[in-house]
Amino acid sequence: MAIERVGFVGLGIMGAPMAANLLKAGFQVTVWNRTPARMTPLLELGAIPAASPAEVASATQVSISCVTNSPDVEAVALGPAGIAEGAAPGHVYIDCSTIAPETARDVARRLHERGVTMLDAPVSGGDVGATAGTLAIMVGGESPVFDACLPVLQAMGKTIIHVGPSGAGQAVKLCNQVAGGLNLLAMAEAIALARAAGVDPARMIEVVSAGAAGSWMLSNLAPRAIRGDFAPGFMVDLMQKDLRLVLDEAARSHTPLPGSALVNQLFQVVQAQGRGADGTQAIVDAVRWLAARPGS
Amino acid sequence: MAIERVGFVGLGIMGAPMAANLLKAGFQVTVWNRTPARMTPLLELGAIPAASPAEVASATQVSISCVTNSPDVEAVALGPAGIAEGAAPGHVYIDCSTIAPETARDVARRLHERGVTMLDAPVSGGDVGATAGTLAIMVGGESPVFDACLPVLQAMGKTIIHVGPSGAGQAVKLCNQVAGGLNLLAMAEAIALARAAGVDPARMIEVVSAGAAGSWMLSNLAPRAIRGDFAPGFMVDLMQKDLRLVLDEAARSHTPLPGSALVNQLFQVVQAQGRGADGTQAIVDAVRWLAARPGS
Amino acid sequence: MAIERVGFVGLGIMGAPMAANLLKAGFQVTVWNRTPARMTPLLELGAIPAASPAEVASATQVSISCVTNSPDVEAVALGPAGIAEGAAPGHVYIDCSTIAPETARDVARRLHERGVTMLDAPVSGGDVGATAGTLAIMVGGESPVFDACLPVLQAMGKTIIHVGPSGAGQAVKLCNQVAGGLNLLAMAEAIALARAAGVDPARMIEVVSAGAAGSWMLSNLAPRAIRGDFAPGFMVDLMQKDLRLVLDEAARSHTPLPGSALVNQLFQVVQAQGRGADGTQAIVDAVRWLAARPGS
Amino acid sequence: MAIERVGFVGLGIMGAPMAANLLKAGFQVTVWNRTPARMTPLLELGAIPAASPAEVASATQVSISCVTNSPDVEAVALGPAGIAEGAAPGHVYIDCSTIAPETARDVARRLHERGVTMLDAPVSGGDVGATAGTLAIMVGGESPVFDACLPVLQAMGKTIIHVGPSGAGQAVKLCNQVAGGLNLLAMAEAIALARAAGVDPARMIEVVSAGAAGSWMLSNLAPRAIRGDFAPGFMVDLMQKDLRLVLDEAARSHTPLPGSALVNQLFQVVQAQGRGADGTQAIVDAVRWLAARPGS
Repeated sequence: MAIERVGFVGLGIMGAPMAANLLKAGFQVTVWNRTPARMTPLLELGAIPAASPAEVASATQVSISCVTNSPDVEAVALGPAGIAEGAAPGHVYIDCSTIAPETARDVARRLHERGVTMLDAPVSGGDVGATAGTLAIMVGGESPVFDACLPVLQAMGKTIIHVGPSGAGQAVKLCNQVAGGLNLLAMAEAIALARAAGVDPARMIEVVSAGAAGSWMLSNLAPRAIRGDFAPGFMVDLMQKDLRLVLDEAARSHTPLPGSALVNQLFQVVQAQGRGADGTQAIVDAVRWLAARPGS
Repeated sequence: MAIERVGFVGLGIMGAPMAANLLKAGFQVTVWNRTPARMTPLLELGAIPAASPAEVASATQVSISCVTNSPDVEAVALGPAGIAEGAAPGHVYIDCSTIAPETARDVARRLHERGVTMLDAPVSGGDVGATAGTLAIMVGGESPVFDACLPVLQAMGKTIIHVGPSGAGQAVKLCNQVAGGLNLLAMAEAIALARAAGVDPARMIEVVSAGAAGSWMLSNLAPRAIRGDFAPGFMVDLMQKDLRLVLDEAARSHTPLPGSALVNQLFQVVQAQGRGADGTQAIVDAVRWLAARPGS
Repeated sequence: MAIERVGFVGLGIMGAPMAANLLKAGFQVTVWNRTPARMTPLLELGAIPAASPAEVASATQVSISCVTNSPDVEAVALGPAGIAEGAAPGHVYIDCSTIAPETARDVARRLHERGVTMLDAPVSGGDVGATAGTLAIMVGGESPVFDACLPVLQAMGKTIIHVGPSGAGQAVKLCNQVAGGLNLLAMAEAIALARAAGVDPARMIEVVSAGAAGSWMLSNLAPRAIRGDFAPGFMVDLMQKDLRLVLDEAARSHTPLPGSALVNQLFQVVQAQGRGADGTQAIVDAVRWLAARPGS
Repeated sequence: MAIERVGFVGLGIMGAPMAANLLKAGFQVTVWNRTPARMTPLLELGAIPAASPAEVASATQVSISCVTNSPDVEAVALGPAGIAEGAAPGHVYIDCSTIAPETARDVARRLHERGVTMLDAPVSGGDVGATAGTLAIMVGGESPVFDACLPVLQAMGKTIIHVGPSGAGQAVKLCNQVAGGLNLLAMAEAIALARAAGVDPARMIEVVSAGAAGSWMLSNLAPRAIRGDFAPGFMVDLMQKDLRLVLDEAARSHTPLPGSALVNQLFQVVQAQGRGADGTQAIVDAVRWLAARPGS
């Protein structure tokens, strides 16, 4: 049976363009957001409003959420008027938030007892990728469920990989944040050294991006950071939340990650400056700050 | 006056394919290497042998070197039977090695007194880029000299940027090593966390590479590291040499680079294991080692 | 009214000798421990057994606890058959465990509603100090309560400082763990460098201890570590628990502590080796491990 | 033959009180300093002036130097008008500077060829210990020479340990700087956390100093740092010089020292603030800076 009716809960920076892409792909999309005003642009594109996650679930075959953290996911899935309350047997719930792998497994188990199957499917690619429909999506859960939902996921992303059983998607997302965080530090220290050596950082980025030290962060965020544009793709406060999940997961398995621990501390430098709502490229200013003179 | 005759000194992992690309581009190429046997493959492609850097210089309009470190460059340029001894007035010497910016400026000044103009033009892109002719080349020196030599550089690389005056090329190369070193650590910690979480690192790399945490290192070196291929593109011992140049340059300008300092220490873990001649992807094993049990 | 009857809950490595010192100082001491067998040595010294923390509280004017973590303290103080159930109005509860400052404040507030006054009074000085009665005790709470309880605290420690209101004792204990953790790393790296340089680490410790780089850790734990004695004064797993409290507290106030974050990661190297129950001096082996060859 | 005539070269913050203590102990002391004005206070105490290190050597049985770095020691010992030029056969030269172990061994070997025996004897204990005559002195060289010079060393220090052959004294001094540097970071992060938690850092130091996290740095330098006294006992720029010797020595033996590398970077934060001439307790401000807001 083909999937035609899809639900979406959480219409933030990421969720809104993801839901829009589902509409463009021809799905009937039912949406809900805690702050109702954010639903309006989607309704104008043809989405159907719901009054709760439960209503989203009852109106659809597959529901998707993209919210901030573990308690949010637990509330959306299992709380009052949550997905579990409205879902018919066989409903599939796909969570695209970034949460602890352990929490994802736990929510999946509790939903399973109530007849709902869950995929954990966090994403990477920023607001740019969400809008362009080119997200990387890392999916944990059972293979047949993944196969059935693939057309839905393909409406939102380009590289969609089934990485293992329940929780594996979140584990891979944590690996993604490890790599992303350290790539951001790479960008920040390279820019700091260029400035110290009297070299134009923009030209440095241009040539370094083209060689073996290139990265998505260097190509996409370094130019913003250099021209002083710190508007968030992805907010520092959220990156910190994710890095704490990383370090908790690493602690549980006794896996030392000294680089990730350092990145975490440097993002705290940014937060101490009252810039937790800036984009992650603000780490450039944290590293710059280390070499600053008081009063300058 | 067009450049037709080019010299090449130092036919190692990088230099040999770079010289070959000059031949392919139609230049007449005169070569010299400390270990003569390494010249043979180039001679078979049509290169002309010389008995010293001085002979290379006297036979050409532009000479290029690609050697290991500062003393090597000083010897090639200014030592007995060096470039300065053989060069006619107006000769241009392009050094593609990675050395301290200060040394590059110093050698340029001393060559200038003897009628030779120098560009510092270190490269990035590994053996892969050297062979494919797709290197990124970061060039320091005077604009007209850069413009005149562009056809020569274009035979070896794809992204060729004039980044500033004498020494600026080396400064940018150090920025490149900062970014590359931390991107390698990003790769190593992401793989360590995947393994700890029981996720297949190859699938993790596949999906992470496609998103905002992607990098050249992740796409090109992670697959080698995961399948246990530690053959060098770029050797750990050379990376350590470069990171020491980075930390010296940063110390001179009082620029704290805590991430680069950590990467440097972790490459020492690799060296302590007797693996300084492995490729830089061996940092994956250093991070893995942190979570290893004695005897395991 | 003088304090004559004192209770003690939690007779572990620290608690048992602390309770014994209360007996030696002439207090009537009522004790309880989750594992009853651990009460026997205290009973032989004259302690009175109780069947629960509530019974301890009802038999005494001041009760003390020394347990592992926040949930333990919450259970002892506020759980079924806990201190709050047995305490008469005016009872004082002194917690010597190391827990989050926020939890200490929260438990104090909830006890206050039930007529019990609380001091947070974590200790430093290890099993050695607990036995000798020379502990440093850092106390948070109201001044008059501190003054009234001083004779009790003086039976267990030597340096007893009232550091501020409720929670301040725990905050200072976290500062203590920051300093202690980094002093341990200092010891470990000094020993590693001595070994690498072919110098006898015992002689190094002897002379370094006597100068400006001396510390309690160097004088007391380095000799144990050098002769391979890793029996716990203070266990690695507990140190890790405390360092996580440190990093949580620092994150809450956006206070970057890069050194403490690194120490935390290095203790994970020890834990990865299956040595979480060793004493903290095992960090010497973690740093040694960084320079070890596989198979050696 | 008893030692009666002793020379001293380098009358800085450390050297001047050390020479004064030799005079107090009854030795005839001949002195030389590059800036002659600094000799005056010693001459008033009864020292004899010399016009060069060579004159110092020719007038004495044992000469001592306390200068800044390797080139200074090489110049004093082996340069024109140096120790080697004036020394009679059997003369002993004791260097109390902190330099690379390798340089110490090299200078000893070259002096040996010219009939002079050398001990490397760096010290710890700061200006306080130099004045009080309570320095820790770590000595490398031959046992009989050490035994013969012990009375001289005892006039300047209290804990005097023969730690091994030529160079071993310097190696131990580097261990001392590792421990001292990390103990300073311990102090800085503990104070930062106290301030963030709203606790009086002076009371924190008082109680923490008395327990297992105590150290010389905490007892002696933390009070200065807290009251804003950054006058040097030991200057940041010199500490940086020593940490670079540490990291070079560690690199040579492939000994990863991640904590020392971090301390080195944090002292660069101090230097970036133009405070290289402050005392090492200024690291407290570097860590405080990490949590500072621009403009505050």
